[in-house]
Amino acid sequence: MTDFFAGISPVTYAPDAPVDQLVYRHYNADEMVMGKRMEDHLRFAVAWWHSFAWPGGDPFGGQTFERPWFGDTMDLARLKADVAFEMFALLGQPYFCWHDADIRPEDDSFAASKRNFEEIIDYIGTKMEAQGTKLLWGTANLFSHRRFMSGAATNPDPEVFAWSAATVKNCMDATHKLKGENYVLWGGREGYETLLNTDLKRERAQAGRFLQMAVEYKHKIGFKGAILIEPKPQEPTKHQYDYDVCTVYGFLKEFGLENEVQMNIEQGHAILAGHSFEHELAMASALGIFGSIDMNRNDYQSGWDTDQFPNNVPEVALAYYEVLKAGGFSTGGTNFDAKLRRQSLDPLDLIAAHVGAMDICARGLKAAAAMIADGGLEAARDARYIGWDDPRARDWLADGTLEQIETAVCEGGIDPEPRSGQQEILENYINRFV
Amino acid sequence: MTDFFAGISPVTYAPDAPVDQLVYRHYNADEMVMGKRMEDHLRFAVAWWHSFAWPGGDPFGGQTFERPWFGDTMDLARLKADVAFEMFALLGQPYFCWHDADIRPEDDSFAASKRNFEEIIDYIGTKMEAQGTKLLWGTANLFSHRRFMSGAATNPDPEVFAWSAATVKNCMDATHKLKGENYVLWGGREGYETLLNTDLKRERAQAGRFLQMAVEYKHKIGFKGAILIEPKPQEPTKHQYDYDVCTVYGFLKEFGLENEVQMNIEQGHAILAGHSFEHELAMASALGIFGSIDMNRNDYQSGWDTDQFPNNVPEVALAYYEVLKAGGFSTGGTNFDAKLRRQSLDPLDLIAAHVGAMDICARGLKAAAAMIADGGLEAARDARYIGWDDPRARDWLADGTLEQIETAVCEGGIDPEPRSGQQEILENYINRFV
Amino acid sequence: MTDFFAGISPVTYAPDAPVDQLVYRHYNADEMVMGKRMEDHLRFAVAWWHSFAWPGGDPFGGQTFERPWFGDTMDLARLKADVAFEMFALLGQPYFCWHDADIRPEDDSFAASKRNFEEIIDYIGTKMEAQGTKLLWGTANLFSHRRFMSGAATNPDPEVFAWSAATVKNCMDATHKLKGENYVLWGGREGYETLLNTDLKRERAQAGRFLQMAVEYKHKIGFKGAILIEPKPQEPTKHQYDYDVCTVYGFLKEFGLENEVQMNIEQGHAILAGHSFEHELAMASALGIFGSIDMNRNDYQSGWDTDQFPNNVPEVALAYYEVLKAGGFSTGGTNFDAKLRRQSLDPLDLIAAHVGAMDICARGLKAAAAMIADGGLEAARDARYIGWDDPRARDWLADGTLEQIETAVCEGGIDPEPRSGQQEILENYINRFV
Amino acid sequence: MTDFFAGISPVTYAPDAPVDQLVYRHYNADEMVMGKRMEDHLRFAVAWWHSFAWPGGDPFGGQTFERPWFGDTMDLARLKADVAFEMFALLGQPYFCWHDADIRPEDDSFAASKRNFEEIIDYIGTKMEAQGTKLLWGTANLFSHRRFMSGAATNPDPEVFAWSAATVKNCMDATHKLKGENYVLWGGREGYETLLNTDLKRERAQAGRFLQMAVEYKHKIGFKGAILIEPKPQEPTKHQYDYDVCTVYGFLKEFGLENEVQMNIEQGHAILAGHSFEHELAMASALGIFGSIDMNRNDYQSGWDTDQFPNNVPEVALAYYEVLKAGGFSTGGTNFDAKLRRQSLDPLDLIAAHVGAMDICARGLKAAAAMIADGGLEAARDARYIGWDDPRARDWLADGTLEQIETAVCEGGIDPEPRSGQQEILENYINRFV
Ligand SMILES: [Co+2]
Ligand SMILES: [Co+2]
Ligand SMILES: [Co+2]
Ligand SMILES: [Co+2]
Ligand SMILES: [Co+2]
Ligand SMILES: [Co+2]
Ligand SMILES: [Co+2]
Ligand SMILES: [Co+2]
Repeated sequence: MTDFFAGISPVTYAPDAPVDQLVYRHYNADEMVMGKRMEDHLRFAVAWWHSFAWPGGDPFGGQTFERPWFGDTMDLARLKADVAFEMFALLGQPYFCWHDADIRPEDDSFAASKRNFEEIIDYIGTKMEAQGTKLLWGTANLFSHRRFMSGAATNPDPEVFAWSAATVKNCMDATHKLKGENYVLWGGREGYETLLNTDLKRERAQAGRFLQMAVEYKHKIGFKGAILIEPKPQEPTKHQYDYDVCTVYGFLKEFGLENEVQMNIEQGHAILAGHSFEHELAMASALGIFGSIDMNRNDYQSGWDTDQFPNNVPEVALAYYEVLKAGGFSTGGTNFDAKLRRQSLDPLDLIAAHVGAMDICARGLKAAAAMIADGGLEAARDARYIGWDDPRARDWLADGTLEQIETAVCEGGIDPEPRSGQQEILENYINRFV
Repeated sequence: MTDFFAGISPVTYAPDAPVDQLVYRHYNADEMVMGKRMEDHLRFAVAWWHSFAWPGGDPFGGQTFERPWFGDTMDLARLKADVAFEMFALLGQPYFCWHDADIRPEDDSFAASKRNFEEIIDYIGTKMEAQGTKLLWGTANLFSHRRFMSGAATNPDPEVFAWSAATVKNCMDATHKLKGENYVLWGGREGYETLLNTDLKRERAQAGRFLQMAVEYKHKIGFKGAILIEPKPQEPTKHQYDYDVCTVYGFLKEFGLENEVQMNIEQGHAILAGHSFEHELAMASALGIFGSIDMNRNDYQSGWDTDQFPNNVPEVALAYYEVLKAGGFSTGGTNFDAKLRRQSLDPLDLIAAHVGAMDICARGLKAAAAMIADGGLEAARDARYIGWDDPRARDWLADGTLEQIETAVCEGGIDPEPRSGQQEILENYINRFV
Repeated sequence: MTDFFAGISPVTYAPDAPVDQLVYRHYNADEMVMGKRMEDHLRFAVAWWHSFAWPGGDPFGGQTFERPWFGDTMDLARLKADVAFEMFALLGQPYFCWHDADIRPEDDSFAASKRNFEEIIDYIGTKMEAQGTKLLWGTANLFSHRRFMSGAATNPDPEVFAWSAATVKNCMDATHKLKGENYVLWGGREGYETLLNTDLKRERAQAGRFLQMAVEYKHKIGFKGAILIEPKPQEPTKHQYDYDVCTVYGFLKEFGLENEVQMNIEQGHAILAGHSFEHELAMASALGIFGSIDMNRNDYQSGWDTDQFPNNVPEVALAYYEVLKAGGFSTGGTNFDAKLRRQSLDPLDLIAAHVGAMDICARGLKAAAAMIADGGLEAARDARYIGWDDPRARDWLADGTLEQIETAVCEGGIDPEPRSGQQEILENYINRFV
Repeated sequence: MTDFFAGISPVTYAPDAPVDQLVYRHYNADEMVMGKRMEDHLRFAVAWWHSFAWPGGDPFGGQTFERPWFGDTMDLARLKADVAFEMFALLGQPYFCWHDADIRPEDDSFAASKRNFEEIIDYIGTKMEAQGTKLLWGTANLFSHRRFMSGAATNPDPEVFAWSAATVKNCMDATHKLKGENYVLWGGREGYETLLNTDLKRERAQAGRFLQMAVEYKHKIGFKGAILIEPKPQEPTKHQYDYDVCTVYGFLKEFGLENEVQMNIEQGHAILAGHSFEHELAMASALGIFGSIDMNRNDYQSGWDTDQFPNNVPEVALAYYEVLKAGGFSTGGTNFDAKLRRQSLDPLDLIAAHVGAMDICARGLKAAAAMIADGGLEAARDARYIGWDDPRARDWLADGTLEQIETAVCEGGIDPEPRSGQQEILENYINRFV
């Protein structure tokens, strides 16, 4: 037992506790919502990288956090894992996530780094078993080391492609070993800094083949979890190939992977791509590729990835509404790919940030469930499209031709009359629940 | 002969003319560039809507232009056409483009509007024959009238779908009749104002079927031109389904149309979607769906579609570099979907704006051709990917597996060494030509 | 009594009414909040322009609303006023606002338009007296007519300057006559479309003198209300001189008006300028120039002014928190400079939008008041700056010199230790109240 | 002599050199432009931080550059200075700039760091004398160390205020000692991450007093250079107080410093604030506070500070046009606050980037000078405001009243007629020169 969280007690559900106590006031793991425990709906995960590996730097300043486990030895990696599981015990969230680089020190060869990785995976596995915290997903960090500066799968240098492929293999193995429920690929440097030195077509082909290999390997080892791609439009690159849900969908179709790969959608990345979070969720659902979410918001006034904990219930409610409409999470969950502000130095900040976020999500989920139960929004939506129940309209859609339809229109009797879209009334409806 | 352009002479190529004369100083239609006449490379088109139908309004103010042909009669429509062809004669550009709504007055029934349309199409056809100006593309305005306020093909009301389909049929017929070289669809209102009242999946299916019908009709009538979609991320809608090139590509793949439909890419729409113009061009080319361009820039500090005439040679050169790399235009061309600023009231402004834009494009094309001829950029690009010529690397890409590659990496000998991306050196290279 | 709102009853406070009834569920005019009636805190105003004069157009489409009073006659202007007051009676909000152009038809000379204006002002005055609805502010529309296309006070043509000055005089007179509580200037076209034809220094001097004249006239006629400037960064211009609160502050300082003029701050304009709404409010308050608010949000994904009704309680609460901290409104109030979406065609949409917005504001106000009463946020803020209570620190600020302070630092004993900024904890705090 | 730039020769002006030679093709230090040597116009400076201290990291990846001088010893600091002056010798640019943190290692107390600083300042001073390279400006890094995480002058902790004041004193002393021509303050962390923990009014007062102390100290020590503030809207903070030129102007007015402090304007920061570069330059000039420029562009598609070398002649020409109109630089100059892309690993990249940028600036300057000489743009501008030469118009501006003017308008004879703003024609004009 480290003393990092000394003085902080496990966080319990106690809605009426005095305000100076750090408790869940809304998140009640066992409470039933739409016939399912709240924990099983939300499937919260803590992100190892932001919570335990990020030093607090930004482009204009260095480390602000002083954590006793910072450093590059296996002993420190184990200490970091110890503290992580202590935090999981305090929060009681069911899941966590990692990149390889978060949990093991890089060593001086691929093989040596692999040995470190396997050792720490075993260490973490033992703790998982003891404590019951599960792995939502694992992933490979193919963007921080300078070898990835020009991309991983899409690197002009095939040696980097190879290094990346080997890394993904090992991370998939580790995820499988730890019974992870998904494997994620975020193509942080799969993009370009300048078109002038970039062959888009070639790099796209590399990325497509790379993803096919990952899918083939998944089947080979019998990994039953989902493979997830996390879209982002840019940063660190000027342009990232996995721009947004629709872009990735086209990519999957091109490489025949649309039934094999799903989306891990982050609020902040949706915003940076010019979309609302609920748009990306609804679109993934419409395209049949919805998987999981990274529930961290972006500051609306900042043009870079701010990865902040969620704090706005009305927005979060709209997101869970789409999740519930999509049938809820299957292998996916709610990962907090969120980092403390770099001025939030204290262990208490780390706990409080997660507690606040989990409560916000609980409130959002309950509001979304109430809207689903009420049915008013879906009823209004259905009513708006009611004209399409008409047999003639169905025929047009099924096998009409422009000529047939033009004849019908010319003959008169078709003269569409606009009807109110009722946006404000629907917004009022939402506000009855949030 | 109207007197609208009284005092303005036909614009000729005269690079050394005194500065107070309005001449082409760079655009020389007959000059050979890479073995082709400049006119045949650039294939300039004037847009009927901005040049002749737009009254100068913006969201905070009304009409500023006072044109003698403004109004809703057939006589005024003919006067507008007369002036348009007078402008084409002054400019000498080979092409123009229209929406149905630009050229004919709307009447009180579909059939009556169709009669107006057919009559004006014949009027224009006669003028085309007499003068030799050709039609680059036709398109249907499915966004201005209030009946389209909730979309055209994606409208919740099937009667609007029908009205739109009938309209597209007639516009395709007219385009075919006038020997138009392409038919364009810009889905200005194919999107949503709020997700709350929108069924994404259903609307996507409607749009897909609509486009299939247009493609089927093209083949039926023997139209040999290309069908083009013009992407835009938003405005007037909050979200437009044809967000950008990659989004449309996914849509085409879903509906089996990726070999039937190409892209008409507008600089301003690329910018609004978070991309550079050359990005969208290069991406369309990489995906095999490049078609045509709308060469009008967006102000970098404005968050709405400003549709300005191009004025930056280095940027335009990068665009034509991608066009030339893609093999140049086939049926496509350079349309100026550009409007005068609303303070530019005079007939001379209209002529001078086009002349300036054509000269900018000519300079850009010549710079791009010089870069192609020099070959330095492509040589640098090829050198960057040289490692992929290695047989082992080719094998990885062709049929490698993660295990094989991991074994190779673990055995050592693969330890990628970063190499400079040389962005600044490549930017210097470009600046030798622009 | 017109039949425009036929079937819609006056909106009453009835928190427990069935969901299909249109009632206030949160706005209770007479409820006391921090010792003041809710109505007197919020001081709601309806905007004549958006609610009664806007036809539903956008840059890609025309009129969608069909109102019986649309047109340019005095009879229609009176009908419009009749309907407006009927809406005020239904909503029961205490205030409204107008531009001259909203309420009277433009006539064929300045003098004739003035006669129309004075006649309609009298007509409205009579209705105000009868009904008790008051004028929050009046303003002049110096941007819609083509004569203002290049600016009003900042026009290159002094005749437009004169026309604008004369118009402001008459609007100030009318505001005074109707006992308006403020007079607003929004410089919609006081900016430029291109720097190339603009003399910034000269136009700034024109704007400064213009504002001084308005202030002088206010004192001359004994108008006791506040003169308010409404900042906006751009649109319709590429750059508007009244960019944001800090920009206007510098302008006021330059022309000696910082004690004469206050800010009317719009959420949407704050967003377009890269600020949060609460930032602009807090900044105006810190600078001593806070006046009033336009409580209409901008869509976060749209780069133009969307002028939507507010719908997010947590955001609205932060705004009213700043208003309450600034001492609440004095002459200012909460104006809804908000327009229906152009698909919201029905009279009911207009009423429901306002009802929803008023309820959102009521919830925000009550949350803000509860936070003020709790005091936790201010206590945390004060604690953060506690070091400045130290006499040595106070001396540094009062009259220290770099040398003195450097000596103190060099001698040691000063070695600042970072302390947590607690952002997430403070965000959690807010979420206890919203 | 180090071997860092081994194989790279001094860069000379040789416009006709073969393309594979790295020479100036446009920058000719001794060439006369408008009666002044080009070197004396442009006054180029290299930025120590980006060129020698930045390791190539970004928020998603670490160091890519491997420089032999990286590390925290005085020996390495001297090596870094040696290489810097070798680069200055190769480039032949007249100036450079530094932060204290760029040139000396931080030590374990303020006094010890000061000793390091003074020693390296002497070392640099000796090299300056030997080589003739001069100091354009010095500045203090008050943002990188964790002690500044909550601000420097605006920190809630007065000890940080003191540390910052002491640092500025020493940096001003050093700048003075090295005969620096300006002293710059960039308030990178003078802003906030969240309003919730921020007292805007208090922090503004701290910043105002801090700047007054710097100005007082300048006069005390007889420093004749300019004190410059460099505006930026945000990043690393969510909001930076020195948002843009107009914001800083208001701040200077509030604290009585508008005649003491000038602006150092960066293209990238202008873009991030929603302005064009030329706007910020023209505005500073109109307000009488123009000082110097940071000539580094921001990528138009990226929402963070990209600090790239300039590469677009038409844009750079517009900037120098404003500089020339403002009378050219006095103490100011052209600093390249520009960093290599992190993939540009080679010493040659560093040289080539500066050479390319200097050539771009030379082309821009010559184009701007040609436009000034031609006079066409100013003539058009003057013509547009010609109406203000009318005595009646002058009187209105001098001491008119709203009543007088209203009377004049009502009496008729004033009915402004819009005139074309000729934007496209003026853009064509510019393109004759670039
Ligand atoms: Co993120
Ligand atoms: Co994420
Ligand atoms: Co456009
Ligand atoms: Co277009
Ligand atoms: Co607005
Ligand atoms: Co407003
Ligand atoms: Co910068
Ligand atoms: Co800078």
